[in-house]
Amino acid sequence: MHVTLVEVRVKPEHVSDFIVATRINHLESVREPGNRRFDVLQSPQEENRFLLYEAYVSAEAAQAHRQSVHYLTWRDSVAGWMVEPRRSVLYRGLFPELAQP
Amino acid sequence: MHVTLVEVRVKPEHVSDFIVATRINHLESVREPGNRRFDVLQSPQEENRFLLYEAYVSAEAAQAHRQSVHYLTWRDSVAGWMVEPRRSVLYRGLFPELAQP
Repeated sequence: MHVTLVEVRVKPEHVSDFIVATRINHLESVREPGNRRFDVLQSPQEENRFLLYEAYVSAEAAQAHRQSVHYLTWRDSVAGWMVEPRRSVLYRGLFPELAQP
Repeated sequence: MHVTLVEVRVKPEHVSDFIVATRINHLESVREPGNRRFDVLQSPQEENRFLLYEAYVSAEAAQAHRQSVHYLTWRDSVAGWMVEPRRSVLYRGLFPELAQP
């Protein structure tokens, strides 16, 4: 699996907006054929900190996600709600042994 | 979901040992009734850095994991292979909407 962890820090007054917009992105993303996980996590200590856990069968499938209407809509919707630019970290998924990049 | 991210930095000479031991822990953990994910990730830049992504339906299910024979066996096996103590971060899983803690 090709895994991206995205750390997002949201302005406190836009936490609810962010959750609504990200739920829509989640629901569409898990329907992509190459998607294996699109988990939306919230920090229990700091409720304006989120982590998106996105796993795809390949780097190509992850790239296709970034060209989807639902991703581009989400990206534009949340752009003004973040405290700072979001940060992405890539990992190679070893297990479960799904398709590798 | 009750999610734990575990960051592990392994001594370079024990990377293969770590992958073998963690694969066994993965295979047993995904069979636990409360488990939803037990993904084992490796950094593509630093091959001795790993991330375990562990999601359970509840805090109780995560606690039951830490009392399992396979977890305790893994914990003892890898203890001497780490460069530094592993670091855990907890998250609340919002989506997918599985059971909450």
